[in-house]
Amino acid sequence: MEEKRFTGACPANLKAVKITGDFWSRFQELVRTQVIPYQWEALNDRIEGAAPSYCMENFKIASGQKAGDFGGCVFQDSDFAKWIEAVGYSLSIHPDAELEKTADEAIDLVCSAQQPDGYLDTYYIINGLQERFTNLAHNHELYCLGHMIEGAVAYYQATGKDKLLNAVRRYADLVNNTFGTGQGKIPGYPGHEIIEMALVRLYDITGEEKYIKLAKYFIDQRGQEPNYFRQEIQSSGKPWGWAKSPFGLQYYQAGKPVREQTAAEGHAVRAVYLYSGMADVARKTNDQSLWNACKTLWNNIVQKRMYITGSIGSTHYGESFTFDYDLPNDSVYGETCAAIGLVFFARRMLEMEVKGEYADVMEQALYNGVISGMSLDGKSFFYVNPLEVIPEASEKDHDRSHVKVQRQKWFGCACCPPNLARLVSSLGTYMYGTGSLEGRDVLYHHLFATGQADFVLDGKSIEIQTETRYPWDGTLKTAFTIPNGEAAFAYSVRIPGWCEHYSLTMNGASAEYQLKDGYAVLNRTFQDGDVVVLQMEMTARLISASPEVRDDFGKVCVCRGPVVYCLEQEDNGNKLHKVRLSGNVSFRENWEDMLDGIVALECEGASVGEAEQTDGKLYRRYTPPVYRPKALRWIPYYAWANRSAGEMAVWVRIQD
Amino acid sequence: MEEKRFTGACPANLKAVKITGDFWSRFQELVRTQVIPYQWEALNDRIEGAAPSYCMENFKIASGQKAGDFGGCVFQDSDFAKWIEAVGYSLSIHPDAELEKTADEAIDLVCSAQQPDGYLDTYYIINGLQERFTNLAHNHELYCLGHMIEGAVAYYQATGKDKLLNAVRRYADLVNNTFGTGQGKIPGYPGHEIIEMALVRLYDITGEEKYIKLAKYFIDQRGQEPNYFRQEIQSSGKPWGWAKSPFGLQYYQAGKPVREQTAAEGHAVRAVYLYSGMADVARKTNDQSLWNACKTLWNNIVQKRMYITGSIGSTHYGESFTFDYDLPNDSVYGETCAAIGLVFFARRMLEMEVKGEYADVMEQALYNGVISGMSLDGKSFFYVNPLEVIPEASEKDHDRSHVKVQRQKWFGCACCPPNLARLVSSLGTYMYGTGSLEGRDVLYHHLFATGQADFVLDGKSIEIQTETRYPWDGTLKTAFTIPNGEAAFAYSVRIPGWCEHYSLTMNGASAEYQLKDGYAVLNRTFQDGDVVVLQMEMTARLISASPEVRDDFGKVCVCRGPVVYCLEQEDNGNKLHKVRLSGNVSFRENWEDMLDGIVALECEGASVGEAEQTDGKLYRRYTPPVYRPKALRWIPYYAWANRSAGEMAVWVRIQD
Repeated sequence: MEEKRFTGACPANLKAVKITGDFWSRFQELVRTQVIPYQWEALNDRIEGAAPSYCMENFKIASGQKAGDFGGCVFQDSDFAKWIEAVGYSLSIHPDAELEKTADEAIDLVCSAQQPDGYLDTYYIINGLQERFTNLAHNHELYCLGHMIEGAVAYYQATGKDKLLNAVRRYADLVNNTFGTGQGKIPGYPGHEIIEMALVRLYDITGEEKYIKLAKYFIDQRGQEPNYFRQEIQSSGKPWGWAKSPFGLQYYQAGKPVREQTAAEGHAVRAVYLYSGMADVARKTNDQSLWNACKTLWNNIVQKRMYITGSIGSTHYGESFTFDYDLPNDSVYGETCAAIGLVFFARRMLEMEVKGEYADVMEQALYNGVISGMSLDGKSFFYVNPLEVIPEASEKDHDRSHVKVQRQKWFGCACCPPNLARLVSSLGTYMYGTGSLEGRDVLYHHLFATGQADFVLDGKSIEIQTETRYPWDGTLKTAFTIPNGEAAFAYSVRIPGWCEHYSLTMNGASAEYQLKDGYAVLNRTFQDGDVVVLQMEMTARLISASPEVRDDFGKVCVCRGPVVYCLEQEDNGNKLHKVRLSGNVSFRENWEDMLDGIVALECEGASVGEAEQTDGKLYRRYTPPVYRPKALRWIPYYAWANRSAGEMAVWVRIQD
Repeated sequence: MEEKRFTGACPANLKAVKITGDFWSRFQELVRTQVIPYQWEALNDRIEGAAPSYCMENFKIASGQKAGDFGGCVFQDSDFAKWIEAVGYSLSIHPDAELEKTADEAIDLVCSAQQPDGYLDTYYIINGLQERFTNLAHNHELYCLGHMIEGAVAYYQATGKDKLLNAVRRYADLVNNTFGTGQGKIPGYPGHEIIEMALVRLYDITGEEKYIKLAKYFIDQRGQEPNYFRQEIQSSGKPWGWAKSPFGLQYYQAGKPVREQTAAEGHAVRAVYLYSGMADVARKTNDQSLWNACKTLWNNIVQKRMYITGSIGSTHYGESFTFDYDLPNDSVYGETCAAIGLVFFARRMLEMEVKGEYADVMEQALYNGVISGMSLDGKSFFYVNPLEVIPEASEKDHDRSHVKVQRQKWFGCACCPPNLARLVSSLGTYMYGTGSLEGRDVLYHHLFATGQADFVLDGKSIEIQTETRYPWDGTLKTAFTIPNGEAAFAYSVRIPGWCEHYSLTMNGASAEYQLKDGYAVLNRTFQDGDVVVLQMEMTARLISASPEVRDDFGKVCVCRGPVVYCLEQEDNGNKLHKVRLSGNVSFRENWEDMLDGIVALECEGASVGEAEQTDGKLYRRYTPPVYRPKALRWIPYYAWANRSAGEMAVWVRIQD
């Protein structure tokens, strides 16, 4: 590998970060006590009333321990992989001998299905190995391997146990020998990306450059002519589902070489997984044009194709992006996994270049479109995260039938719950980063939660203790424990993009800092016991979208800190489309214990009553509608649909 | 039959009405000179570059004149039926020996395919008669027969030739002997309605009560338990396309008995065809509960499920209704055939009860959502009639891909062009009606156009001459020629619902009249040479929708007389979503020769410019947008997409 040229932030070691503050530790506990155990039951077909997963059953059949047919989706193996990854993270932050024993046994079973040449995908082991690697566009073999690598690395990092890691290395080696543009190799790449970023993690653990090269190959080969997918689809002789779709091969981001792709297109999860892998490979290989492609795609998403909640994917059709500024609130897809993928992408952009906007988007997605995917009790999940819900439309309009009014217990295609589990469990790695600036070590503080974290800076052990009630309060206190007494480094704390007024103190006095790319940089020799306090003014504010966004034009939404708010029928009645705010509206903020503790907002709005126009006529000569005052109550968007089912709206009309 | 109890308006005899005024005679000429000849070429697979129709070819194969397989849709025979119906109307108003000869030869061919028992449907004649009447839900046999009856009646009325009429009678007799709830009969009914109203026409021509009874059977049996379609679908063993749809058996309006149906549901064309047949049967059989069902369904449509253009069908999925007040402008279906079907339904409601609202809706659909289906040169057609078009959405969003930016040459499923042809050609029968009021004859004047018409009233021949520039000008002059010198009757002229101020004169002096249910009734002894002038104040006006309509909330549209207007990109640039009107906007009206002659409207609006907010940020703290004055130019909605392809909008924002 060439020498490192990019000066980004290396993510923190998960084991070095402890989150103890309410907000995120509560989610981590939900994952540990609810999601991971439930998922294990699901993988073993022990959930009463739920369709069987077949996942572990498939491994038993593939290993010859049982007879039977393959069951579930073609990518069913990945359910185990995502589970073991979440288990790994959870064990890293919360050791649990019993869970580890269960995981070890599961790994034994999984590894027992591995073929002599390293191959390990139950669908083809059970259905016939001669067909393997023949339907890359749709049959998810490389996707399953990617997830398996991520799981193996996480489990190894948590426990030091390398059985699964060795298994995936052997499989990755087989793939490395099978794929490529050389003689006798398959010039293909995955239909659903993830293996690219997984291989970079495998490199990080093993130091084997072949894995980076394989990741780079998958990225470089994608979309090249002659187009591998086109040939594969044509030679299959079967009809192709996306033939008449607006995106064609761009459904898989394979319509042209990735460096020529300038807009986020096709299946949103695949897209951001690819871009994450591109960023990883660009960083590892100092690939400037690949980095440029990442920045172009990043800008396209966050400037033109992202919901205020950090959700992406404007249509259910292909779970895909559509076009610039097309952000319908009621027919949105906004898959939980896609918002999670955007967090992956954002963290990798930070690894290349520390700019507040990357962490801003990471935060925006995390506090809104990611955690909205899970109920507050950790037992039910949204796949789709709408910004406006009309129950009757979900029931009676096919094009909005994917928009559910209540979270579902589990899905046949259960990608979102385990994806949430692995992200939430590993959140510590997203909160901090380290790097260097003009020869000095830097500690980047991207995200805020109460807890502690350990780093080595200036060659010395540093522990920080953080205290905050974020996202409900804008005060962040960071105390430095330096056993050696002092250390020279830069503490670079993000000033969130949402924050217009803030102050920084050092041991109670105004702090000296430089503002650089959205971070306040305190570059100094820190003393043991130093305390930095960042005060971010946090009040409810009205946000508007670019006027190019048709569906938000003439509307506003309400945010406070990083949290997007919404109106629910439970608090405000239905017919939320009639609600209007004035531009000078003011909000009362109340801490409430409901919904596991939130700051609720109240304001005076207006609405058009039923009584105004009830002559039964659908159309009439225009007269100005009579708006009457209406008290409105806002709750955080992520907490919606945890009470009664009903209407919900993020964007409401503004009088301007 | 029982004695007539309903006191509606019997439609005028088509041959008695001549339309000579520009507006509708131009459309009738288009149908005669463009649509009918083009369609004949299409039916015979002689259109270069177009997919073959196979229609006449199928008749050749079915009659044994040629060998070959059945081609085209299962309902391909109906294309001939719709053509011959339009030909019949056209010959009624414009005799044409050559066209009649072509039609006679076509009828000879069609009749030569009829089976000894009267059966006449080429799909089953070619593919095997043993399967006939086994897939009523989907295979359209009774639909084809319904159209064939309508065509045969129209051709007989135009020419007096009964060859096709006799053929369809024999087929209808076979159906009559085959269907019913009695022993050995099939207790089914059509998946796509139309035969109900067709059988009533067949009764009108033949006087055979069995046809009314058969129509009544089809209506009464529909949706009864055990449900015929459910059984048919189950016994077919094939997957059922609507199994997971929101409407289920209501896709075919067959989920429950028709008298229990209270909302317009399912496929919109089928629905209004059924309701038209229900109204016909209710009238002929004095069925009060069926009439009540018609009124309930009518009210549901016009009060809650109809676009301002008279279009119906809110979703492409199933070409269907969705739910009350769900009227999206950009993803609408609004099939031309459905608006035509609504005109059928409206006329039949008028036949039961003369109320202006039925004729108002008839007019609303005719001047807007019906004729928008055809280009001004009669050569291309819309299936879908949107009220808002964003070309990029049609291209890149699958859910809006059915919304075309330009009219298409012809369709594989070519229902709309011939349906337009048969309606426009027979428009005379919709313009006038006759009835009686307190023992006196009444002439109802529902729709307005320059021309003449003959009636017998008070036992005397009456000719009226009308002059108007409607819909561009609100003056309607009606002159009475009474060769006998005088006649006592009521002249009942509609005062359109859109009209707020009007005056009526009789021979230049203020006329005496009574206003009754939306009609001005001049009940008197008319003298030869009497002239009635109705002056309707016609100015552009702003219309708003019920506040329950989410998609129109905070918006208005512009109408003038019966004509709905729209903004096109060609005149106003794109990004029409940013346009805003003030409530006190005033319009300049200009007669223009463009678009075959229109009144164009101009006004001062406002829009948010590009320059205001171009920091590249998608979301920002709200500040009131800066609206700048923008001159707007409006054209009639029906004339949109006759110039360049671009954005179009009917509803625009209002500052209130």
